[in-house]
Amino acid sequence: MAQPKGTVVLAYSGGLDTSCILVWLKEEGYTVIAYLANIGQKEDFEAARKKALALGAKKVYIEDISREFVEEFIWPAVQANALYEDRYLLGTALARPCIARRLVQIAQQERAQYVAHGATGKGNDQVRFELTCYALCPNIKVVAPWRLPKFYQRFPGRRELMDYAKKHGISVPVTPQTPWSMDENLMHISYEAGILENPKNQAPPGLYTKTRDPATSPDTPDVLEIEFERGVPVKVTNARDGASRCEALELFVYLNEIAGKHGVGRIDIVENRFVGMKSRGFWHSPEGEFLRQCIRRSQEGVTGTVRLSVFKGQVYILGRESPRSLYNEELVSMNVQGDYEPADATGFININSLRLKEYHRLQSKVTLKQDE
Amino acid sequence: MAQPKGTVVLAYSGGLDTSCILVWLKEEGYTVIAYLANIGQKEDFEAARKKALALGAKKVYIEDISREFVEEFIWPAVQANALYEDRYLLGTALARPCIARRLVQIAQQERAQYVAHGATGKGNDQVRFELTCYALCPNIKVVAPWRLPKFYQRFPGRRELMDYAKKHGISVPVTPQTPWSMDENLMHISYEAGILENPKNQAPPGLYTKTRDPATSPDTPDVLEIEFERGVPVKVTNARDGASRCEALELFVYLNEIAGKHGVGRIDIVENRFVGMKSRGFWHSPEGEFLRQCIRRSQEGVTGTVRLSVFKGQVYILGRESPRSLYNEELVSMNVQGDYEPADATGFININSLRLKEYHRLQSKVTLKQDE
Amino acid sequence: MAQPKGTVVLAYSGGLDTSCILVWLKEEGYTVIAYLANIGQKEDFEAARKKALALGAKKVYIEDISREFVEEFIWPAVQANALYEDRYLLGTALARPCIARRLVQIAQQERAQYVAHGATGKGNDQVRFELTCYALCPNIKVVAPWRLPKFYQRFPGRRELMDYAKKHGISVPVTPQTPWSMDENLMHISYEAGILENPKNQAPPGLYTKTRDPATSPDTPDVLEIEFERGVPVKVTNARDGASRCEALELFVYLNEIAGKHGVGRIDIVENRFVGMKSRGFWHSPEGEFLRQCIRRSQEGVTGTVRLSVFKGQVYILGRESPRSLYNEELVSMNVQGDYEPADATGFININSLRLKEYHRLQSKVTLKQDE
Amino acid sequence: MAQPKGTVVLAYSGGLDTSCILVWLKEEGYTVIAYLANIGQKEDFEAARKKALALGAKKVYIEDISREFVEEFIWPAVQANALYEDRYLLGTALARPCIARRLVQIAQQERAQYVAHGATGKGNDQVRFELTCYALCPNIKVVAPWRLPKFYQRFPGRRELMDYAKKHGISVPVTPQTPWSMDENLMHISYEAGILENPKNQAPPGLYTKTRDPATSPDTPDVLEIEFERGVPVKVTNARDGASRCEALELFVYLNEIAGKHGVGRIDIVENRFVGMKSRGFWHSPEGEFLRQCIRRSQEGVTGTVRLSVFKGQVYILGRESPRSLYNEELVSMNVQGDYEPADATGFININSLRLKEYHRLQSKVTLKQDE
Repeated sequence: MAQPKGTVVLAYSGGLDTSCILVWLKEEGYTVIAYLANIGQKEDFEAARKKALALGAKKVYIEDISREFVEEFIWPAVQANALYEDRYLLGTALARPCIARRLVQIAQQERAQYVAHGATGKGNDQVRFELTCYALCPNIKVVAPWRLPKFYQRFPGRRELMDYAKKHGISVPVTPQTPWSMDENLMHISYEAGILENPKNQAPPGLYTKTRDPATSPDTPDVLEIEFERGVPVKVTNARDGASRCEALELFVYLNEIAGKHGVGRIDIVENRFVGMKSRGFWHSPEGEFLRQCIRRSQEGVTGTVRLSVFKGQVYILGRESPRSLYNEELVSMNVQGDYEPADATGFININSLRLKEYHRLQSKVTLKQDE
Repeated sequence: MAQPKGTVVLAYSGGLDTSCILVWLKEEGYTVIAYLANIGQKEDFEAARKKALALGAKKVYIEDISREFVEEFIWPAVQANALYEDRYLLGTALARPCIARRLVQIAQQERAQYVAHGATGKGNDQVRFELTCYALCPNIKVVAPWRLPKFYQRFPGRRELMDYAKKHGISVPVTPQTPWSMDENLMHISYEAGILENPKNQAPPGLYTKTRDPATSPDTPDVLEIEFERGVPVKVTNARDGASRCEALELFVYLNEIAGKHGVGRIDIVENRFVGMKSRGFWHSPEGEFLRQCIRRSQEGVTGTVRLSVFKGQVYILGRESPRSLYNEELVSMNVQGDYEPADATGFININSLRLKEYHRLQSKVTLKQDE
Repeated sequence: MAQPKGTVVLAYSGGLDTSCILVWLKEEGYTVIAYLANIGQKEDFEAARKKALALGAKKVYIEDISREFVEEFIWPAVQANALYEDRYLLGTALARPCIARRLVQIAQQERAQYVAHGATGKGNDQVRFELTCYALCPNIKVVAPWRLPKFYQRFPGRRELMDYAKKHGISVPVTPQTPWSMDENLMHISYEAGILENPKNQAPPGLYTKTRDPATSPDTPDVLEIEFERGVPVKVTNARDGASRCEALELFVYLNEIAGKHGVGRIDIVENRFVGMKSRGFWHSPEGEFLRQCIRRSQEGVTGTVRLSVFKGQVYILGRESPRSLYNEELVSMNVQGDYEPADATGFININSLRLKEYHRLQSKVTLKQDE
Repeated sequence: MAQPKGTVVLAYSGGLDTSCILVWLKEEGYTVIAYLANIGQKEDFEAARKKALALGAKKVYIEDISREFVEEFIWPAVQANALYEDRYLLGTALARPCIARRLVQIAQQERAQYVAHGATGKGNDQVRFELTCYALCPNIKVVAPWRLPKFYQRFPGRRELMDYAKKHGISVPVTPQTPWSMDENLMHISYEAGILENPKNQAPPGLYTKTRDPATSPDTPDVLEIEFERGVPVKVTNARDGASRCEALELFVYLNEIAGKHGVGRIDIVENRFVGMKSRGFWHSPEGEFLRQCIRRSQEGVTGTVRLSVFKGQVYILGRESPRSLYNEELVSMNVQGDYEPADATGFININSLRLKEYHRLQSKVTLKQDE
């Protein structure tokens, strides 16, 4: 056994990697506290707790942080229309600072000097986790085994991990492993690695777990009305059966349910990591705070209702209305003159064309010169 | 009859408005040449020609400019991933400078001092048409009847136009008018005005003419492979039946056909006009030229093949490959270490967190001071 | 005499143009109220008042709005580091919405339906004035004589104005006119038009009235210390004589005095008007309000003191300090290691170079292929 | 003596640090080739050569790369108006990729596997040097002693370096060291570190070596005319004595001479390092290449002559002209109507104010509601 090194709070998932890490940290001399965030993923939390204790965790925190995830992380992203490369809703990137914030709080509460995680040394998660930790608690020390040569040279592949697990009585999943990895939370599930690493390959049909295949999804749409206030959904009503939800977490879960039922939300994307990476993890940073404040203010007029149809993998907007809209039907109407004087547009266009005419004049002059 | 005023080339559609304008321009003393661009819309061009001549046009130009529309306007937009408000592919905005460029050329050829169009004084088309005309031929004079008080006070509504048409032997459409207006070309069809002016209203089911309703579209997808070179599609192959297209116009028409068959491409959007308007029409401008050159260069590496499934109103990417991709499967792989040294990431994260730690240090200092 | 048309509030300067316009507006049937804003320009305000009354103004408003100009318009511009084309501090552009805001208030107070101004039809001032008026009081009607054919065809040049003045007993300046026009306020004086219209011409030596020629300015600098709070100067102290100012208007006037004494602030610039014009005049607009709020917030940490030397047309920064600075001397020091681990930089650079190496690999592959 | 490790090309300056590094690298088992770039700095290159050979360098490269520095690095920066934080001309940042490019070429030529430099582990130079090396030669290995614990723990301060120098017969400068460090090249000289690390301190009077103190600079200006073609100076003429320069390097040196004589170019700035650092060093990168190509194109019309006065630390623009200018004196003139119709501006302003009026209407509605 190594020298005692103090206490570490480990971001623990119950899976093979973090179970092995838990045992390895103990071997290294750490006292280990396991922390498992319930952020909406499907998981047997009680089994995970028992496993951690059995492997020697001094204490296990299992906490449901779904509500703060929706209210403090997802809603601001909705207000910002946050979309990575016009497609990806950043489900993983948004969850990490929420999880890591609590990780650091527990470390402070437990007077632990260390936190640890099982993220690999190649991905974005390590960056997101650690920047959050350092931003909120600059003196914290992070143990990232997958970046320590001592660890990654000992466990170059899955086989060595399995051997270690067997040797230390770590239960190994009996169901065959999917040839890809998953990250699930309330907001999304992402699949990557394994056979998905070749961008030419099609995702296999059985992969999706949160959305039905649009080919077999219902043949009639659900029609929803979503009310917004200041850029955030405050009520959803289903026109088909009158069901409605108002509380943030319930509302979000309901939208997920309807979308999943109709196969909405499947995308396939090649992300960028590291420099120019998917998300810099800079949620807890001066520029992050500033941006969120500005965006929140920009959404003050985004209040109203949108009516939409969810069907066969698509969302169709049917109509929208807002008491704060600048849209004035009479003014824009092609049939009514309203307050609008068509002759004004002549001056508008003439003034706008002035510089184009000047540019043309100049081009002709230059061309003439070249022709001389 | 008014004083002779010279020759005007009228952007003519064969419809009620431009037919009345044709006759009115003659009344005003103009010699009228009608110009009708075939830019992919469904129309009886021969009937339109006869009608224009019957109404007194001195000459009629009907020209197919679909090929230049695809190659010189649509392709550059594809290279730029040009999307208005993340949704609208700018089908109208791209067609206008293409049509107007030819309008000006005809005017120059015919030594006409004037061009005329039937665009309203409230919309964007007037701006796009005229800026193109002025940019390419600064001395041209534009007659825009819908902005002349003399004209618009005489024809405040559709009824007055109908009366005028009857009086002057202008054939009036016998089929009842749709309660909205349409703009069709090779790239898209847009519907606006009339009952669509209330953004709360749902578009009526019978409205769509280019896309099938996803509810009744085929139950099996088409799987396409599209090859790109320098950001532009150069070949499409249908995996179902082996059909393929290489020539730009044919390829584009084929993609439209498959997309339409599966109900792909229906959107509903409230656009902005005028200032901050949908498209400023500045296609022919120094900044427009500069941007297109830069974008073209940015696309030099966009070469490769994308495989996609078209189904029930959606397009799903199945896979992609490119000989010029920066993606290196071995480097990114979660299973292989490749050229990558995980320990480097520690330094990377530490350096990136430096300023967050400093910010935290400062915040604490400020807070301490405030607490004193 | 024309039909009575109601009351107009005229932005009046006391000069030839607006005096003639005052009389002309009366001829046209308006009751005229003259409004002259004291915004820091050198002027005989009492003479201007008498003149306006003598010319038939029903009432004259002369108001000192310097303080609100500094606090509500100049300070926000300072917070934004607002610089037009990296050089021009926007002295005219910032004054216009301040003047026009009061113009509209007076019109509302006096129940006048009209406001009028003497800005030309080519410049930016007309835009700034009127957008402010329309933004704050959409029903106001603007009379801009220099854009009315009836007016500008009657007064095609200065001579016709002079004749009109003589005929109507309007006193005409006896001193010869400078061959350029000036716009002065608290913040700056700008010179344009006349011989300055040729951008090749050097500004004549006698032109400058607010700054001494650096060639004859003092041979010893003034050294100032300026304290900022939230991005705005709150105190200036002169190290030479201990003079200090704290109140916004006095502080600003003092800085102007010192800068002028040392010839600081002379620039020569070709501005853009109209589209892409110097300032769009959109001070009173939703985007303007939003931006100012965000900028104000961004300046919350801009607190501290800068020490500078003002000398021979230049300002030299001598030193600065801030209790909220992120600068940490120990951390950045080249002599002290501080909290910093140099070895971390190796990982940082390696990770940053990853994609460059990949790009090189790809380029070689592409080149090899081309060579085959 | 250590195991032989192969050949390293050392970026050598002749100063204390790189002389010690040269000897240390030999101790470590490397064969050392010294490379010293003449990039315009004042230095006894021959003495540096002899010193390197005496210290055991196998070979010494001393090369004048000033011309490529001006033509390939400085001119593109001029075209881009490249200014860091509105003030700093990036003299160090531009020199590094130029020096490092040659460093790598020499390594390839000499079949050396390693390059080494004496940049510290805290600054930007290490990043610029190494990213250039990796971008141009991904397999190169960089030895950065100041980031190796073995080295920096052995030499924690200047004293240990001096001791090492004495022990190994490395000549040590006899003149007392300035309490700051300098980086000089053709484009600039920068001073940092030491007493300059406190941003509150004023730079001491004797610090500047390239510019005269404006307080004692000549009392008469030099007036220069600089001709540009495509954004780059091609000729400078001094109006005082008729001197002129056309060749890029000579022209640049001459401008430096005149500017230095009049004290032009002194700035004081707190830079950012690392993330968001002064220059990312990404000169040799895909985005760098793309940007330079686009900027070059954007400068195609920047042709003409600017006349300016250089005096007492300032540059005053006196006039400018260009055959490709869009400026049209007749059009902009306040005295001539030109092609311009003032009445058009009314329509232009009305259209631009439309949305402001709508916004006002809406605000009133909202306010009314709140008041109810």
